[in-house]
Amino acid sequence: MTTPASPDTASTEAVRLQLRSWPEVEAYLQQCRGVIVPLGSTEQHGPTGAIGTDALTAEAVALEVGRRSGVLVTPAQNFGMAEHHLGFAGTVSLQPSTLLAVLHDVVLSLARHGFERIFVINGHGGNIATTRAAFAQAHASAAARGLPGAERLRCRLANWFTAGPVLQEARQLYGDREGHHATPSEIALTLHLEPSLEAKQRPLPDPAPAGPIHGPEDFRRRHPDGRMGSDPFLARADHGARFLDLAATALAEELRGFLAEEGPG
Amino acid sequence: MTTPASPDTASTEAVRLQLRSWPEVEAYLQQCRGVIVPLGSTEQHGPTGAIGTDALTAEAVALEVGRRSGVLVTPAQNFGMAEHHLGFAGTVSLQPSTLLAVLHDVVLSLARHGFERIFVINGHGGNIATTRAAFAQAHASAAARGLPGAERLRCRLANWFTAGPVLQEARQLYGDREGHHATPSEIALTLHLEPSLEAKQRPLPDPAPAGPIHGPEDFRRRHPDGRMGSDPFLARADHGARFLDLAATALAEELRGFLAEEGPG
Amino acid sequence: MTTPASPDTASTEAVRLQLRSWPEVEAYLQQCRGVIVPLGSTEQHGPTGAIGTDALTAEAVALEVGRRSGVLVTPAQNFGMAEHHLGFAGTVSLQPSTLLAVLHDVVLSLARHGFERIFVINGHGGNIATTRAAFAQAHASAAARGLPGAERLRCRLANWFTAGPVLQEARQLYGDREGHHATPSEIALTLHLEPSLEAKQRPLPDPAPAGPIHGPEDFRRRHPDGRMGSDPFLARADHGARFLDLAATALAEELRGFLAEEGPG
Amino acid sequence: MTTPASPDTASTEAVRLQLRSWPEVEAYLQQCRGVIVPLGSTEQHGPTGAIGTDALTAEAVALEVGRRSGVLVTPAQNFGMAEHHLGFAGTVSLQPSTLLAVLHDVVLSLARHGFERIFVINGHGGNIATTRAAFAQAHASAAARGLPGAERLRCRLANWFTAGPVLQEARQLYGDREGHHATPSEIALTLHLEPSLEAKQRPLPDPAPAGPIHGPEDFRRRHPDGRMGSDPFLARADHGARFLDLAATALAEELRGFLAEEGPG
Amino acid sequence: MTTPASPDTASTEAVRLQLRSWPEVEAYLQQCRGVIVPLGSTEQHGPTGAIGTDALTAEAVALEVGRRSGVLVTPAQNFGMAEHHLGFAGTVSLQPSTLLAVLHDVVLSLARHGFERIFVINGHGGNIATTRAAFAQAHASAAARGLPGAERLRCRLANWFTAGPVLQEARQLYGDREGHHATPSEIALTLHLEPSLEAKQRPLPDPAPAGPIHGPEDFRRRHPDGRMGSDPFLARADHGARFLDLAATALAEELRGFLAEEGPG
Amino acid sequence: MTTPASPDTASTEAVRLQLRSWPEVEAYLQQCRGVIVPLGSTEQHGPTGAIGTDALTAEAVALEVGRRSGVLVTPAQNFGMAEHHLGFAGTVSLQPSTLLAVLHDVVLSLARHGFERIFVINGHGGNIATTRAAFAQAHASAAARGLPGAERLRCRLANWFTAGPVLQEARQLYGDREGHHATPSEIALTLHLEPSLEAKQRPLPDPAPAGPIHGPEDFRRRHPDGRMGSDPFLARADHGARFLDLAATALAEELRGFLAEEGPG
Repeated sequence: MTTPASPDTASTEAVRLQLRSWPEVEAYLQQCRGVIVPLGSTEQHGPTGAIGTDALTAEAVALEVGRRSGVLVTPAQNFGMAEHHLGFAGTVSLQPSTLLAVLHDVVLSLARHGFERIFVINGHGGNIATTRAAFAQAHASAAARGLPGAERLRCRLANWFTAGPVLQEARQLYGDREGHHATPSEIALTLHLEPSLEAKQRPLPDPAPAGPIHGPEDFRRRHPDGRMGSDPFLARADHGARFLDLAATALAEELRGFLAEEGPG
Repeated sequence: MTTPASPDTASTEAVRLQLRSWPEVEAYLQQCRGVIVPLGSTEQHGPTGAIGTDALTAEAVALEVGRRSGVLVTPAQNFGMAEHHLGFAGTVSLQPSTLLAVLHDVVLSLARHGFERIFVINGHGGNIATTRAAFAQAHASAAARGLPGAERLRCRLANWFTAGPVLQEARQLYGDREGHHATPSEIALTLHLEPSLEAKQRPLPDPAPAGPIHGPEDFRRRHPDGRMGSDPFLARADHGARFLDLAATALAEELRGFLAEEGPG
Repeated sequence: MTTPASPDTASTEAVRLQLRSWPEVEAYLQQCRGVIVPLGSTEQHGPTGAIGTDALTAEAVALEVGRRSGVLVTPAQNFGMAEHHLGFAGTVSLQPSTLLAVLHDVVLSLARHGFERIFVINGHGGNIATTRAAFAQAHASAAARGLPGAERLRCRLANWFTAGPVLQEARQLYGDREGHHATPSEIALTLHLEPSLEAKQRPLPDPAPAGPIHGPEDFRRRHPDGRMGSDPFLARADHGARFLDLAATALAEELRGFLAEEGPG
Repeated sequence: MTTPASPDTASTEAVRLQLRSWPEVEAYLQQCRGVIVPLGSTEQHGPTGAIGTDALTAEAVALEVGRRSGVLVTPAQNFGMAEHHLGFAGTVSLQPSTLLAVLHDVVLSLARHGFERIFVINGHGGNIATTRAAFAQAHASAAARGLPGAERLRCRLANWFTAGPVLQEARQLYGDREGHHATPSEIALTLHLEPSLEAKQRPLPDPAPAGPIHGPEDFRRRHPDGRMGSDPFLARADHGARFLDLAATALAEELRGFLAEEGPG
Repeated sequence: MTTPASPDTASTEAVRLQLRSWPEVEAYLQQCRGVIVPLGSTEQHGPTGAIGTDALTAEAVALEVGRRSGVLVTPAQNFGMAEHHLGFAGTVSLQPSTLLAVLHDVVLSLARHGFERIFVINGHGGNIATTRAAFAQAHASAAARGLPGAERLRCRLANWFTAGPVLQEARQLYGDREGHHATPSEIALTLHLEPSLEAKQRPLPDPAPAGPIHGPEDFRRRHPDGRMGSDPFLARADHGARFLDLAATALAEELRGFLAEEGPG
Repeated sequence: MTTPASPDTASTEAVRLQLRSWPEVEAYLQQCRGVIVPLGSTEQHGPTGAIGTDALTAEAVALEVGRRSGVLVTPAQNFGMAEHHLGFAGTVSLQPSTLLAVLHDVVLSLARHGFERIFVINGHGGNIATTRAAFAQAHASAAARGLPGAERLRCRLANWFTAGPVLQEARQLYGDREGHHATPSEIALTLHLEPSLEAKQRPLPDPAPAGPIHGPEDFRRRHPDGRMGSDPFLARADHGARFLDLAATALAEELRGFLAEEGPG
């Protein structure tokens, strides 16, 4: 019941919620109760990486998963929880309580229409905790408001950058120089998506090692150029194309399982 | 001091904050303290209009204003306040208190880096009230937190769809059939931006007249297909290109004045 | 169904909710589902104007509209959103999020009893955005809480100072010297209501021109005596009596239309 | 330092903040750092009592205390915490969290101008808990925001209806029939203030006894006409005049002590 | 219906919710709808008193009341509202709005399972206001969420330290030297519960007199060692045993009455 | 600088913040800036497990880590985020936004006194996301409030049940029957701590397999007796003693490293 009508690959246009009309969404819901929500962040990615890395990559992966699975993709939430990066110019961060409210409202809006499988494709580690908290709060609200499908509502968080094959490929390509922020794997994906970013690539000195994340001043003191153990100069656009394919394959598979989960009927 | 380095037109890539690195933003701030924030919504736009209309158009206008003025453009906030459209499938709405928190956090993040002129280009009437409220709250927080530039911080809301030349052109092209939601002018701009949307265009029966906006059930009862007095079938892609130019011209002019406003020094 | 029993003028006492008992309100609701809520502010009004101007005028207009229409009037919310006036002694401001909560709770309380037409008569421009946001939030809550009349609930904001005949009269009397804050029209109304205020009237130097509103420090720097382009010395008590009549006439007419609006039955 | 300039009685007009200009408040602060805030409620007061009883009485007592002491009086906060009375038509209640925010913002606004002794004269038992909570929150915020006078800020709650001489007089006049809600003493004061209320007075059956307060449905079930053990028919306008004098005498004395409290210098 | 199965004394283990399984709680609810919630605080108690005094005593009294009455006791909420003690090292305080949310959520959780008599045994005066506010908010939410037992839900706050026999005994033992914070009575109870605390006891200079409570800096300035008029050196462990018995007797009696209160059936 | 004075084992009494006076804490802060906060939950643990399992175990591990390291231990926060267990009687849950506020306030209180290393020992997986979000929010507030040590503040979450040696031992003892909720390892620890719990132990049918966690109704439908793939009948008290030792050893080691982390000086 909750699998989309056309399991074969569709066009990206066909799955963008932004390009659909409401009667088309109403019809879609007769076939499939699943929806993908891309979640990014707008934050520094080292001296050569793009500030939009997490949103650009999350949206690209989400659209590719949508295209392959026929599941609708909402527009991206481009601002995420990036408090610890606020020491670097250009970072825009929602406080955890704000991001929690955003995701809560997005899930509740979708649930109201009858969506029952909310699949959040995330591009930023800093969003994970708040997203999980938001899911719990959304479940509570759905029940408190008496939404018809409250019992059938399920949310799942899928981080493209921790998908098994992605991690494996990154380790093989970059070894220890993958690091933990402004990693070559995510930078590679942005090079694939936005060729103009190539111009920023240049060799960098050894990065500060990754460490635990505390406040923004502490973060900048310990990671003066914003990198956490990574060497983004290793990134290449063709790697990025490969990462996109690996991530989309893994997440499309996970989404299929999520849609097929038995429910209370 | 607050005018950008290159008043001449730049490429869109050059002004997208998402494609900049943090050192580039730091350098930019030496030249210009202004930034553009596109604000959209994800909501029904009648039986033939795209759900992403307000976000797609706000972002397109913002990027064009940025390109012409050399002022940085953040990624769009794609979800806005659309409570009254929640009766139509696909609408995603942030509660007013949530959107208020989002815009507050975005402004505070930018102010922390030294941005002093926040220019929000908005595509949705339903966002106006909450955005203004958020500006007042942001001013209070900036002072309470002791941000260095708190006294110099200024925010402005610019709705592309109410710019004088846009209203004039819409009246001339569509007269009364412009209406108030899912208007031919905004639909035209989406046709220019996303040609695949042409396929949805078809003649529609006379729309329900526009009326005051209350709750979502009331809205749907009175506007059964989502339109408020509009005839979106009149929209054409070439009109859209014209609206984009008119809006960008008007808002770029307004932005220039905003950046040039004298400050406390 | 939603028009009051006695469309003819009543006494002010008869329409003040504060002077009614609960069984009287219960009986009233059999006849009329409308109610007026005066919304003011407590903020500086230039070197000679009264800090209570916005609340005094909003309440006076509300009671006069109530008297003429027989519609109940709640007590005034005397504190509004006046963050930008906090640089001047005596100003008391609710943060936007607080005022939003107040109006939300007031509307929900009234809706619970069966009121379906909430008519907010406002005396302060700074309240407009937050009030509109509060209405949207109240509609969402009414539905979420399952209030019986949620679908029939409607809220309207009516600013007495922007009623057509009021603006026209002010322009005729004061021309450009009406200005935008501490205007002679509102000061005139306070002179009519509180004769002791005459003693403060005196000629003032040319005011600072009106400009966009940002934070309180910026506001005071640009409007050192609190006025925005206005010459309140032009105000006279007899003008005030005239403004009261014009505003009440216009708003009573608007209220009648609001009560007569067809509903979902 | 914190006693007002003119300890002798002034006119009511002279102490109403609403009728002052900001330079007058600035001058006042050179003489006195105290201010009175009347806090009421809008809620059922039995089958014959006025819904505005708590706000009308709090404001009247506050103005009389102000007149006698020369201390400024803000306008009343007319809506209070009356959740348990929501089962009776006409009651308007702020949720505790909302009233907390209102009082927080009012105190913080006043503290910003240099007021250091906030004296809240309250007319409703249901407000007490939330007001005390708000004071604690305001102290925390004043310090967090770095307000210059944060260490000297003090807030006090004074309930006119529990002042010693008031309780004594009520006991003497009404004995057990004073009760706990819609009491003859508060009704008497409203009869003194608003003669038109006399028309509602009539003998009533024995009231339901007072009990603990839980939710609104429980309250109405146990107090079907809204009274808690009281016989408001005993109230007389001349009693009310006496209560006003007793309350004002007692609270003016308390206020004097509050203003004279030694501070951190 | 709402009295527990075994009115005779049980073991402490038997009434600790923490040591029950969910089927045991389900069975218990067939017999009794009452539950005890201990509420403490973590705050300075003078130079010789334990920081955990309020939580340790509240929990001990709660368990003893539970043991005697057979009513379940939840674990203690150990952090309370202690903003005014934050000037002393070791104090941990929840803001009033936070504690309000905690108690709201605790009551709502219990009400969801069918508990209808929530008996909060409190050890800290600073919690009283916020707890009462939380009860009002919880009643509103229970109704808004449509909880089946919303109308039957009742909450009561019982402060062990103000129970009549406790106050009487303290007066007899310590007279004026009982004071208002870090009192010998509460210290005595901690000596009974935690013998290791004896080692801290020592004669102290005359304490600062109790006064009204404002912000933390003001509090510390006026009460430099944290005591308010108390002489905790008078406390003895055997007094503490006596206070525990007196408090438990009084509160068990009050609880019995609370459980036996007639309800809406 | 941030290591405690007595690295050797102390008594449990010596490290309980509840049993310290404020001057003792002040003295402690001269030696060590670290503090342990136990975080539990109050929620169903299958048909035979104790509802207090997560709080009892977190507090026991915390006290043992404190005893071995000499670092102070605050009282436990006994209520956590357990929304998904609310379908089972006895579960008490704080909403994510509430728990976020609690942990935020606890961290801010401690930071105000000069604590710079906040080590949260957690007993419940459902708390993890919200705790991480709270840390980010606390860092932002510490900076916004201008706390002197804001830049040096660090928070760490340590889950005793995922410590390496604990996981290893559980796998060895129970293999797949460890499961994911109401696990034999945590039940074993409660048997060690509270011998009366032995009486509940009994063989159980095969548990429902663990699955993703959504709303409470969904959870109960899929895990009808509350277990997620676990066989708590395998638990023995002596296992529990071993788990306590393993967890304390691992976490004390982690704490030592945390305290020794270089800071901004």
